[in-house]
Amino acid sequence: MSGYFTEKSSTDTVNARIGDDVSPRLREVMESLVRHLHAFAKDVNLTQEEWEVAIDFLTRTGRMCSEERQEFILLSDVLGFSMLVDAINNRRPAGATENTVLGPFHVGGAPERAMGDTIVQDGKGESCLYEGRVLDLDGNPIEGARIDVWCDNADGFYSVQQPDLQPKWNNRGVFTTAADGLYSFRGIKPVSYPIPDDGPVGKMLAALGRHPFRPAHMHFMITAPGFETIVTHTFVDGDPYLASDAVFGVKESLIAEFKPHGGDTDWHCAFDFVMVQTG
Amino acid sequence: MSGYFTEKSSTDTVNARIGDDVSPRLREVMESLVRHLHAFAKDVNLTQEEWEVAIDFLTRTGRMCSEERQEFILLSDVLGFSMLVDAINNRRPAGATENTVLGPFHVGGAPERAMGDTIVQDGKGESCLYEGRVLDLDGNPIEGARIDVWCDNADGFYSVQQPDLQPKWNNRGVFTTAADGLYSFRGIKPVSYPIPDDGPVGKMLAALGRHPFRPAHMHFMITAPGFETIVTHTFVDGDPYLASDAVFGVKESLIAEFKPHGGDTDWHCAFDFVMVQTG
Repeated sequence: MSGYFTEKSSTDTVNARIGDDVSPRLREVMESLVRHLHAFAKDVNLTQEEWEVAIDFLTRTGRMCSEERQEFILLSDVLGFSMLVDAINNRRPAGATENTVLGPFHVGGAPERAMGDTIVQDGKGESCLYEGRVLDLDGNPIEGARIDVWCDNADGFYSVQQPDLQPKWNNRGVFTTAADGLYSFRGIKPVSYPIPDDGPVGKMLAALGRHPFRPAHMHFMITAPGFETIVTHTFVDGDPYLASDAVFGVKESLIAEFKPHGGDTDWHCAFDFVMVQTG
Repeated sequence: MSGYFTEKSSTDTVNARIGDDVSPRLREVMESLVRHLHAFAKDVNLTQEEWEVAIDFLTRTGRMCSEERQEFILLSDVLGFSMLVDAINNRRPAGATENTVLGPFHVGGAPERAMGDTIVQDGKGESCLYEGRVLDLDGNPIEGARIDVWCDNADGFYSVQQPDLQPKWNNRGVFTTAADGLYSFRGIKPVSYPIPDDGPVGKMLAALGRHPFRPAHMHFMITAPGFETIVTHTFVDGDPYLASDAVFGVKESLIAEFKPHGGDTDWHCAFDFVMVQTG
């Protein structure tokens, strides 16, 4: 082999350039990336004009990024890439609660609240009592599980999206289980909302005939000593976007029933979380 | 199939979302892109941390882009992707002059010069007489072929990179063949130079144990009515970077011999260009 570039040998030519002292993992990742990128261009006989459109798209996506907006994560999300990476890194045995994407709206350091307390601070929305247990794979309750919850408000915005309109910790809180593994808190029944679609990724979704909506969901991050962290949502059963979540976050096992409650609470949602031991 | 995302069905789930009214070509390109991106993540079991590094890399690459700097094109170049797209779109029969990448330094509207004239305006560098013919595949001379040439100066910079230090059309010019198909002009023997490596792409090259240099070359864009346009370089035989061009632009058939000339000219470079008829 001459070492010069040809259409046929393109992948090998590029990958042969990687130096001898490069970390084996970086080599593995980059070789695979080059192999798949080149195979893509060959599969579709990518034209020069299409390449120019792609360069322009990436450039506009970069220009959209700021402290408040991560358009490349959005791109990864709508291509199902974020969910795929989440799935690869969180394979769990049957019976364990499945993971889904963290999303961009989690804020660390939310207030610790007492069991049964409310997370709603803006008085908006249909009220909902959330209840359930945190269990291990054998059905034993887990003591000291830390349950960090967050969701959008009744207008479809997270508090971080509206720092001037919502209290900082609106619809956010942390609850810790006792020996019985039980949790309960009051919140709202969340509502569906569009991901930010005024940038290049939104234009791409429109060109692909896709909508930007996510089905209504409550976020949970559950940690407990000796157990794998669960990052997940529960989705409101019956939401019209369940089967077409713009970021592919829905898993069948995460769809939760919201039942009318009565009294001073509109809804009731029961959901148990099952954690996997580490090691 | 539920339509919900699973690791196994990830590609199908994402591609099934494309709307019915989407152009067949956009569908083909995006389906292939999703297939290859997902296969990449699965092949290497991409970790969450590696995904974060990738998002950060793309974001920094976007931030580096400006009117004067296109870091995404640079990224495409060093991954061999630009050369691959060029190869796919310029397949030619044996005997025809091969294409290579246009590069970012071409400027339209260069002065038309008389055969034999010089393109050097800064008085720097080792002088060289360029000569040869523009032919069709049967060896017949092509009349009216427009030969647009450009190269870096003796310091390794194109005139557009040094608008305050070099005359605008330094080392640039356009020559048009007569019935004999002959061309000749005076320039310099070009020198090797690094692609801009002070950004994320330069850091990536360093992490991969690669250098940023391109071997010395003269650019040619040759157009003639009834013939496919040739965009190519001739490379200086013996250049130490021939086998390791940072952007993979070298093809064996494009390496040109530079011979000592004598008289008031240091070097002589003979090279014939062979064009393919259109249609």
